[in-house]
Amino acid sequence: MPPIALTMGDPAGIGGELTLRAWLARTTTPFFVLDDPERLTALAARMKLPVPVRAIGAPSEAAGVFATALPVLPIRLAAPAPPGRPDPANAPAVIASIRQAAELALSGQAGAVVTNPINKAALYQAGFSHPGHTEFLAELTGVPGQEVMMLAAPALRVVPVTVHVSLLAAIARLDTALILRVGRTTAAALRRDFGIARPRLAVAGLNPHAGEQGALGTEDASIVVPAIRALRADGIDVSGPYPPDTMFTDHARAGYDAAICMYHDQALIPLKTLDVRHGVNVTLGLPIVRTSPDHGTAYDIAGTGTADATSLIAALEMAGEIVAQRARG
Amino acid sequence: MPPIALTMGDPAGIGGELTLRAWLARTTTPFFVLDDPERLTALAARMKLPVPVRAIGAPSEAAGVFATALPVLPIRLAAPAPPGRPDPANAPAVIASIRQAAELALSGQAGAVVTNPINKAALYQAGFSHPGHTEFLAELTGVPGQEVMMLAAPALRVVPVTVHVSLLAAIARLDTALILRVGRTTAAALRRDFGIARPRLAVAGLNPHAGEQGALGTEDASIVVPAIRALRADGIDVSGPYPPDTMFTDHARAGYDAAICMYHDQALIPLKTLDVRHGVNVTLGLPIVRTSPDHGTAYDIAGTGTADATSLIAALEMAGEIVAQRARG
Repeated sequence: MPPIALTMGDPAGIGGELTLRAWLARTTTPFFVLDDPERLTALAARMKLPVPVRAIGAPSEAAGVFATALPVLPIRLAAPAPPGRPDPANAPAVIASIRQAAELALSGQAGAVVTNPINKAALYQAGFSHPGHTEFLAELTGVPGQEVMMLAAPALRVVPVTVHVSLLAAIARLDTALILRVGRTTAAALRRDFGIARPRLAVAGLNPHAGEQGALGTEDASIVVPAIRALRADGIDVSGPYPPDTMFTDHARAGYDAAICMYHDQALIPLKTLDVRHGVNVTLGLPIVRTSPDHGTAYDIAGTGTADATSLIAALEMAGEIVAQRARG
Repeated sequence: MPPIALTMGDPAGIGGELTLRAWLARTTTPFFVLDDPERLTALAARMKLPVPVRAIGAPSEAAGVFATALPVLPIRLAAPAPPGRPDPANAPAVIASIRQAAELALSGQAGAVVTNPINKAALYQAGFSHPGHTEFLAELTGVPGQEVMMLAAPALRVVPVTVHVSLLAAIARLDTALILRVGRTTAAALRRDFGIARPRLAVAGLNPHAGEQGALGTEDASIVVPAIRALRADGIDVSGPYPPDTMFTDHARAGYDAAICMYHDQALIPLKTLDVRHGVNVTLGLPIVRTSPDHGTAYDIAGTGTADATSLIAALEMAGEIVAQRARG
C-alpha cells in the first residue's frame, strides 16, 4: 500500500506540530509530509518533541524511513514561519505542497492526501482563487464542482449540501438536483470507501419540524421531497425529510449511516456537539482519497504546545482505512 | 407553597398517561391536574396503572390529597377521547384547562402552570387563534408579545430568538431589538428563577463561522453585534457572536449559563442531541411560572404504554424549583 501524502498546511499554524505529534503516535499507515525539513527540525527542537526528520527523494522511500524518522519530501519555504504570524511569501510553498500531493495521489505514488489546515486569506494574496482546499483539489484532480464534504466521527457522519455560504445564500442555493447529486455521491462513497453494502441515508428537512406540512416553510415539500423520491428511484435506501432537531439523538442515529444536511451548521452543530475531537473531513466525489482534520490553523495556540493532534491522527487513520477498503472492494 | 396546576393537554395524546406516571413517581412538588376525572380513571384502568383519581373542589385541597391520590380539578370532556384520535368536540375543554390554570396561577392559588402537549390543528377548528400554548399564555396573563422560550436540560439552556417560523422567515425577522429583548428577559430569569447571581449569556452567530468577517453573511456584524453591545451596556455578562458549530461542545458550554440562539434548530439540535429526554420548555417573560415537557402529543404511541414521562416529570420538578427560588429570592 503506498504511503499517505500529508501537506504542510499554513506553516504559521498548528499543522507542523500536529504532524510531529502524529509521527510520534505512529498509529497510522506510513505517511510522508510535503514540507520544509529544516523548519520541521527547528520546530521539533523548539517544541522539545523527539522527532528525527529525514528528507526523502520520492514517496517510495517513505515506508522504509517511517519507523525511525519522519519522512519529508522537501518543499522549501521562502521566509521564516514563526508560529501565529502568517507570511504571504510562503503561500507559493503552501500551494505547491497541495498540488504535489494531489499529483502523487493521482499517479498512485501516494495512497491518499491528508491536508493540514490552511489560511485562505493568506493564500488569496498569492493568487489562490478557490473557496477552499476542497474546491482546489477537485480542480486539480479534474472533477471541478463534483466535490462533496463529509464530516465523519465515530458517532455520526454528516454531509452538508451547502457549505461555506451565508445561511440566506444556503437557502437560495438549495435545489433538488444538488441534493440528488450529494445523495448519490454519498451513497456511492459509503459503499466503496466505508464498506457499507446497503447504505442508509437520512435527509434532514430545511425548516423547523421539516416544514410541518407547509406551516413552517414550503422548501421541504417543494425541494427536499422530490430529491428523496429521485434517490429512492435510484435504489438508494433513503428516508426523510426529518425534523432536524430530533434526527441526531442516539436513537435516531442508529437508523442511518449518514445524514444529508441542508446547511453548514445543521451538519456541524450535532457533529461537534457530540464529538469535537475525532471529527474528520472526508472529501467525496474525487478520484483520489482525501481527508483532513476538522479544525483550522489555530494561530492563537500555534507554538504553545497545546495543539491536539487527535483529529489529524483520526484523518490519517481514516485515509488509510479508505485506501484499504478500496483495495479489498 | 401552592400546588402546581397541570393542564389536560390533548386528551387523544400521551398527556393523560404521562400525568398518571408523574403522580406514580411523586418526585415533585404536589400538583393537581385540570382534567376529566372519569376519563383519567378509565385510562388508569386500561393502562393498568395503580392511580387512584380524586376530584377536588379547589386547588387548596390538592396538597392533602396528593400523597394518596391524583387530585383532579374537574373539566368534563364533551366526547370520548380514544388514544390517537383527536376530536374537535373536546377542544373547548382543552382550552378551558389552559385558561383556568393560568387564572389560578395569576391569583396565587397555583404556584405554577405545567402544560401537557396540545395539537394546534385540532384547536384551530374550535376558534383558537394563537401560534401555540406559549403565545396564548402570554395573552391570558396580560403580556402579549413578551414571552420568551427557553429549553433547559441539565447539560444546556438555550433560548431561540425566533421560534416557529420557516428558516427564511427567521432570518427576515431577526433584528437587534428582538435579540436585545430576549437577552434581557433571559438574564433577568436566570437571576430570579434560577438563582444565578451574575448570569453569563453566550450569543450564537446566525451564519457559519459567525459570518467570518462578512465573507459568510453580513447579519452577524450588522444585527447581532449591536445587540451584544447593548446588552453589555446594560451590565449583562454577554459574549459572542460565536461560530454556532463550536459553541455547544463540553468545553464551550462550561463558559455560559444560557445560549441565545438565532433560530429554532440552532437551539434545538444541540439540546436534543445532547439530551432528548430531560429537556424542559420554560416560558420566560410571563408574570406566572410556566414549564412544559419538550415533546408533542405523540398520537402514534398514545395508549400503547410506551410514552416516557421523564420530560413531564422534569418540567414539574423545574416548576417547583423556580417557585421555591422566587420564594427565597
